[in-house]
Amino acid sequence: MKAARFYDRNDIRIEDIPTPEVAPGEVLIQVAWCGICGTDLHEYLDGPIFCPSHGHPHPLSGEDAPVTLGHEFSGTVSALGEGVTDLEVGDHVIVEPYIVDDSVDVGPESKTYHLSKDMNFIGLAGRGGGLSETISVKRRWVHKISKNIPLDQAALIEPLTVAVHAVERAGELTEGQYALVTGAGPIGLLTAAVLKAKGLKVIISELSSLRRAKAIDAGVADYAFSPAESDVLAEIQRLTDGRGADTAFECTSVQPALDLILDAVKPTARIVIVSIWGHPAQLNMQKIVLKELDIRGTIAYVNNHPESIALVESGKINLEPFITGKIFIDDLVDKGFDTLINHNETAVKILVTTHRDLLDS
Amino acid sequence: MKAARFYDRNDIRIEDIPTPEVAPGEVLIQVAWCGICGTDLHEYLDGPIFCPSHGHPHPLSGEDAPVTLGHEFSGTVSALGEGVTDLEVGDHVIVEPYIVDDSVDVGPESKTYHLSKDMNFIGLAGRGGGLSETISVKRRWVHKISKNIPLDQAALIEPLTVAVHAVERAGELTEGQYALVTGAGPIGLLTAAVLKAKGLKVIISELSSLRRAKAIDAGVADYAFSPAESDVLAEIQRLTDGRGADTAFECTSVQPALDLILDAVKPTARIVIVSIWGHPAQLNMQKIVLKELDIRGTIAYVNNHPESIALVESGKINLEPFITGKIFIDDLVDKGFDTLINHNETAVKILVTTHRDLLDS
Repeated sequence: MKAARFYDRNDIRIEDIPTPEVAPGEVLIQVAWCGICGTDLHEYLDGPIFCPSHGHPHPLSGEDAPVTLGHEFSGTVSALGEGVTDLEVGDHVIVEPYIVDDSVDVGPESKTYHLSKDMNFIGLAGRGGGLSETISVKRRWVHKISKNIPLDQAALIEPLTVAVHAVERAGELTEGQYALVTGAGPIGLLTAAVLKAKGLKVIISELSSLRRAKAIDAGVADYAFSPAESDVLAEIQRLTDGRGADTAFECTSVQPALDLILDAVKPTARIVIVSIWGHPAQLNMQKIVLKELDIRGTIAYVNNHPESIALVESGKINLEPFITGKIFIDDLVDKGFDTLINHNETAVKILVTTHRDLLDS
Repeated sequence: MKAARFYDRNDIRIEDIPTPEVAPGEVLIQVAWCGICGTDLHEYLDGPIFCPSHGHPHPLSGEDAPVTLGHEFSGTVSALGEGVTDLEVGDHVIVEPYIVDDSVDVGPESKTYHLSKDMNFIGLAGRGGGLSETISVKRRWVHKISKNIPLDQAALIEPLTVAVHAVERAGELTEGQYALVTGAGPIGLLTAAVLKAKGLKVIISELSSLRRAKAIDAGVADYAFSPAESDVLAEIQRLTDGRGADTAFECTSVQPALDLILDAVKPTARIVIVSIWGHPAQLNMQKIVLKELDIRGTIAYVNNHPESIALVESGKINLEPFITGKIFIDDLVDKGFDTLINHNETAVKILVTTHRDLLDS
């Protein structure tokens, strides 16, 4: 079967590899669509980061480069491994792409398996990937979805779940509260979508006019300001009658966004750091102390897929506006990665398929 | 009556001023003991900070320098203003020294009055102070205490309440968990005391051997390490079987302490910033994100006095070891401030009185 394989930085190859077989307890999935994630771009440009380099197998998967890429995908069940009785061939599914140690509690009450030692991801550190025709995944990590959700949109449920968990990390939020989201890249937009679905008023601060327009047009932001053109702090004070935003989500990894947030939120606000910073931040500790602010990191998700699936199934979140391109796997680097790197103001999510017929439909 | 009055930086005078009268709704208190706070030192060395400078009255108190100092004090009720019926002359009391706007909810359920606009403190921004013979305070801010608590120790309940609130800010903690406290100055020691009273195991990181000895001798720390002499991170990993500390309290305002904390705590740990930093901190955001850490500021207290009084009344916290000096008000600068500035490794809390007989007893 066709698969996109990460060999090393700047070396991703579309190859023919053996189709996987379904082991006991696993689900064989014919992949429909797979999104390209910022993490994939980082592996391509700066990696290997999550991917195990050649000769250094990941301690849990036992695999090293080359590994199949792709962790944001949807598909159809094509076979069931021994002992899997609660799914049927033909079911539409998505995957929560975790590789965690067998000793870790991954039950429905766990709130920490995503932080366990050596945790990594299917599609980065082994166990196949969504940038291929077929993948076999442990039952635990397969989530059935309604056939009412188009499979292209379903491929976006994985990044949506990152946003659902980020919003969960902010603790209790109530309808009508104001949320500031700095940055309207894919995760900023999806975080805004979750906040809107929960009835909050969303204010986006974003330099790119095209991204601001996307946030407004997609209906996930009530207000979108440019920090280069507006006094965003003054706008937020005006909108909130001087109270300040009730919560904030940092999705840029740039210092001015963090500085804005510390000034723009009300005392006791919970601030969630969603972006991965490559450099240390400067933090004004007096503001943290005197306003009793609360800065919380968030990474990936933990038992959040049921909520994100329900948000899409119920129609509270429409993922269609965030699909800005669909390509065949052979064009992954040229039309996928390069577009995201060079046209990242207009590209939100590019979906990849190994099935030419899906592109024509 | 005698009172210590802040005029300006390096200008504190012991003066005779009129004894206050008790207004309706107020309680007249004959002050027994008043502690010197780090905040008082800052006003003396670097102020005015909280104190309103001459010609710039505080918006709520309407007063400007000179103002009477002292906000950590205990005393005896000497008269009751009209309408105050739930206290008696002779009761022992302490004061929660807030100046907040009359429109602010200061009821027992409020969790935010300490963060209200223009909030300031009795003994810094007007309305008298504990460094005087007598003070009249609104009933709301007077807390009755058992006569079983010696009045000298009672003067330490105010800073203890800062620690109680800091620990409250860490959220749920359970017996047997490990807490890291960086810094064993007065607030670090009292924070350790609260954690010990709640059954946690307390690890202190502190450069001064004298302060480490005080923490161990006072029974508020289980372990006290010098970051100059030990690999504190390795010690914590060893003590916690590699898990990391469950929570941490930053009481130094120095960068290496914050760096230690981010490495030493377990994923999902709540980290409370108790110290007031005069400079920005560098924050490794990747650690915040990848460990899903939670950094929370804390300032002063809000409806925490009942808990701190109960901790002392029940004997769970013994404040006696933290009293390292008692002086007459005339010696405030020479024997009080100067000792704290020049001998701050041995001095924890110096108490001041206007009553020579209390010094002799």
